[in-house]
Amino acid sequence: MSPTNRPENGPPWRGRLYDVLFESDQNGAATAFDVVLILTILSSVVVVMLDSVETVVEEHGFLLRVLEWIFTILFTIEYAARLAAVRSKRRYALSFFGIIDLLAIIPTYLSLLLLDGGFLLIIRVLRVLRVFRVLKLVRYMGEARTLGRALAASRYRIIVFLISVVTLVVILGSFMYLIEGSTAGFTSIPQSVYWAVVTLTTVGFGDITPATSVGKFLAAIIMLMGYGLIAVPTGIVSVEMAQAAHMARKMEGSPSVRDRVCSDCHSGGHDYDAQFCKGCGGTVVDVGAE
Amino acid sequence: MSPTNRPENGPPWRGRLYDVLFESDQNGAATAFDVVLILTILSSVVVVMLDSVETVVEEHGFLLRVLEWIFTILFTIEYAARLAAVRSKRRYALSFFGIIDLLAIIPTYLSLLLLDGGFLLIIRVLRVLRVFRVLKLVRYMGEARTLGRALAASRYRIIVFLISVVTLVVILGSFMYLIEGSTAGFTSIPQSVYWAVVTLTTVGFGDITPATSVGKFLAAIIMLMGYGLIAVPTGIVSVEMAQAAHMARKMEGSPSVRDRVCSDCHSGGHDYDAQFCKGCGGTVVDVGAE
Amino acid sequence: MSPTNRPENGPPWRGRLYDVLFESDQNGAATAFDVVLILTILSSVVVVMLDSVETVVEEHGFLLRVLEWIFTILFTIEYAARLAAVRSKRRYALSFFGIIDLLAIIPTYLSLLLLDGGFLLIIRVLRVLRVFRVLKLVRYMGEARTLGRALAASRYRIIVFLISVVTLVVILGSFMYLIEGSTAGFTSIPQSVYWAVVTLTTVGFGDITPATSVGKFLAAIIMLMGYGLIAVPTGIVSVEMAQAAHMARKMEGSPSVRDRVCSDCHSGGHDYDAQFCKGCGGTVVDVGAE
Amino acid sequence: MSPTNRPENGPPWRGRLYDVLFESDQNGAATAFDVVLILTILSSVVVVMLDSVETVVEEHGFLLRVLEWIFTILFTIEYAARLAAVRSKRRYALSFFGIIDLLAIIPTYLSLLLLDGGFLLIIRVLRVLRVFRVLKLVRYMGEARTLGRALAASRYRIIVFLISVVTLVVILGSFMYLIEGSTAGFTSIPQSVYWAVVTLTTVGFGDITPATSVGKFLAAIIMLMGYGLIAVPTGIVSVEMAQAAHMARKMEGSPSVRDRVCSDCHSGGHDYDAQFCKGCGGTVVDVGAE
Repeated sequence: MSPTNRPENGPPWRGRLYDVLFESDQNGAATAFDVVLILTILSSVVVVMLDSVETVVEEHGFLLRVLEWIFTILFTIEYAARLAAVRSKRRYALSFFGIIDLLAIIPTYLSLLLLDGGFLLIIRVLRVLRVFRVLKLVRYMGEARTLGRALAASRYRIIVFLISVVTLVVILGSFMYLIEGSTAGFTSIPQSVYWAVVTLTTVGFGDITPATSVGKFLAAIIMLMGYGLIAVPTGIVSVEMAQAAHMARKMEGSPSVRDRVCSDCHSGGHDYDAQFCKGCGGTVVDVGAE
Repeated sequence: MSPTNRPENGPPWRGRLYDVLFESDQNGAATAFDVVLILTILSSVVVVMLDSVETVVEEHGFLLRVLEWIFTILFTIEYAARLAAVRSKRRYALSFFGIIDLLAIIPTYLSLLLLDGGFLLIIRVLRVLRVFRVLKLVRYMGEARTLGRALAASRYRIIVFLISVVTLVVILGSFMYLIEGSTAGFTSIPQSVYWAVVTLTTVGFGDITPATSVGKFLAAIIMLMGYGLIAVPTGIVSVEMAQAAHMARKMEGSPSVRDRVCSDCHSGGHDYDAQFCKGCGGTVVDVGAE
Repeated sequence: MSPTNRPENGPPWRGRLYDVLFESDQNGAATAFDVVLILTILSSVVVVMLDSVETVVEEHGFLLRVLEWIFTILFTIEYAARLAAVRSKRRYALSFFGIIDLLAIIPTYLSLLLLDGGFLLIIRVLRVLRVFRVLKLVRYMGEARTLGRALAASRYRIIVFLISVVTLVVILGSFMYLIEGSTAGFTSIPQSVYWAVVTLTTVGFGDITPATSVGKFLAAIIMLMGYGLIAVPTGIVSVEMAQAAHMARKMEGSPSVRDRVCSDCHSGGHDYDAQFCKGCGGTVVDVGAE
Repeated sequence: MSPTNRPENGPPWRGRLYDVLFESDQNGAATAFDVVLILTILSSVVVVMLDSVETVVEEHGFLLRVLEWIFTILFTIEYAARLAAVRSKRRYALSFFGIIDLLAIIPTYLSLLLLDGGFLLIIRVLRVLRVFRVLKLVRYMGEARTLGRALAASRYRIIVFLISVVTLVVILGSFMYLIEGSTAGFTSIPQSVYWAVVTLTTVGFGDITPATSVGKFLAAIIMLMGYGLIAVPTGIVSVEMAQAAHMARKMEGSPSVRDRVCSDCHSGGHDYDAQFCKGCGGTVVDVGAE
């Protein structure tokens, strides 16, 4: 949530409410709010998960319903407060977190509307959808952005790698379908391709396994391929992360880049040992200090 | 497909056809053609895969046959057009993509010839072979070449690694055959070696598992070996990729470091954009050339 | 155990005892003690493990009980000796290794107290807890600290990665619960989330497997995700270790680069062993500091 | 096999025989011999493996026995020739490859001696041991030494890592034994530790799986641990390999280190831009040549 959605005019409580709800640093009330919210989200996800366990519902069904409504009301209040605090309601409502915040409360209300009817399947889906509340936690995963950026930078290469793997798996799966006939679960190409994914990624459920010698031989080759191919995404991400770390170190450690400025043209970015400006020939001075 | 197969003489439509079929950049018609072709390939592969699912064939068998023929005719037209567009028909027909393009259409025609006979197995194989159309997609995976080059550069080391793993697996499998006797699936050395591959690569189907204590102890050691050995291909590929990235970076950044020299004091190592010497304030000139 | 807990006053045997028990370098008696202790710990852990195997207890139950008491008495003597040797008994008793040393002997004594009663479960727990003696080995894993430091340095990023994985697994598990209904083991969300962890981490037990086509399709995507995501922790730790190695190398090689300056032309960057300036032939001096 | 075992005196055919048997470069006869030997080794290993498959023995038992004797005689001739060619018979016989070459022929002869008796188990073991012939291939895996060196350099760290993993697995396995009682295969601590190895290394056979909720929760944590811990050996080996590559590059690319020599004191190792000797202040000259 970019700070520009902070209300500039209006009553002062709105600004303060905004700081508590959207800002998380150096702010006692905001930190307290964040801790309470994270605990509430986690508890509500646990309740949703338990709500799908039959034995728990039989014993504590009423308690779960009560807790569910308490959480829904809390999240509704939070959503209303956020709407009240921001300058542009529309911008918040359509933002990623605005949609997640709304999705966290809608299913419970919808299940109320459909309670009398026979929409059992829809109710079931809605119940499960409440688990998406866990995404509200993403707001607090600042470091994840750094990781995400490294993944994003190698996005194209990883997609190419995955397409290659899918191509490989389609062809290997088809071969296994030919070899294993319809023995032991290799009943169709999609099924065999599913098996090839299970095997190449070294998951190895064992629900489908080759029965013939030739099938086992090909399976062994697929496994060795998978064991070697895992090096590719690892190599991609390692190099990307190493470069990011290298850049960060260069940025930090080079006073020359940040602090050495020409006394004539005030241009920056001069080398550590530069005495004269590379742009105008004037004297370079160190304006340093951090 | 190297551009030298583009027709130089002959009617202008052949050149234009070549550009649409074989070139993929900055060319509206070529881009449109590529998108349509990729979608057609993917659809045709899906049809081939569904063609092996019994329940789907029972219900939509006729539709699948019709679609199959439509795709075959489309790919036949494509193949003919490619043949017509290139300068040397023979060179295209014998190229990797020429063979793939031919393999994509032959099975369907052959299945027509064999329809009356009892060549059920051959028809089945031909049907599955059509899945190789997916390889036509490789044409569009330019980035894969970069990945492929990193793998190719470490080819020799990875082969040596795999040979070592195979040697290890043959010996470990034989030991397990001795220990487990013929209990629980360790019925022969090849079977035990297959099990050792399944275990060392951390796939772990579980179709064969050790039953004796000694067997479980050796199995645990094999698993720990596999868990540690996976570091080797990963290390090889990571280092290869890091070196490729390092080279690329050096190439980009190098003119400044190597070639920019002060005309007064002849010192080097000036930035790419430096006009004046950082040491004496003299003019920096590019003595470049490699 | 920091050396400051070595007794400074008191009889000389206490100092010598401390050296044998707590110091491990250049000390014949201490090395012998360490080897004996490591072997004793390993043997005692083997005895505890065998004590849980029914067939072994039936045959050699008495021998195991005797060995168990011998080890307990040995570790009691060791604990008493350590207490006697240190300057501050309290500081040792509350240190990590003090607590481990105590935990290694308590269970056997407690099981004596509870022998007549019917506290079968507690006795069982106590028996198993004796396996914690293996932690006494940690004292001898000096190099582990280096590895631990690399893991600790990337601690925050790995936690963020694991939180992301848990979030992903909760959502993917919920989807699988919706898709697979209650077929084949996907009986509740927690169960499905457990399956998602088994699949994403490429463990793949196969006790629960998807039965529907859509479920298998989603499962294949989860496997490919897990196959690609494993690159993230690997990348994090690799970069961290590379930086640690880089720092170590820089530290070693650095005085020459930073501190060795020509007394005539004041140029820097001379080698560690340079006596004369490589630029003007003047004397190189060490202007050091830190 | 170091070249110093080449006979210096004696008839010239011994020297030539040595070159064919032990040297593999730039030598037509030696290359031909190597190719034939590798194929013979591979064929003989295949025969040994097939010899353990009951259905194959029933059908082709006689053929296998004949082939087995042909290979044994060939390897016996090879062993005798090697013994004849070397200067010191004893040194070869006790070398790694001398022992392997002997082990490749002994089992077949021993099985002859024991054929009449009832030493079925020993014969079975001997039969399997012939598979060790695969180790004769190690002679031809020169590049493996480079990989081996990288593994050897990180040997200590990898051992520490494996000890940590074993400690972890003993404790986690004991916990699982406590939690899962004796349900579903967790019948003893060694069994549970075996399961913990299967799970932490992401092998996941599925022969033993947790049945209780708490057990599944702990299992999920173990899996996530294993998924993250795999980064450690990978990081260790990657860094080691990167440093080896870095060293190799530095050696190659630095004329300064190899070729710049003081004209006065003839010391080497001067920087690329050094004009005066860092040791005696004399002039540095480039004695280059590649």
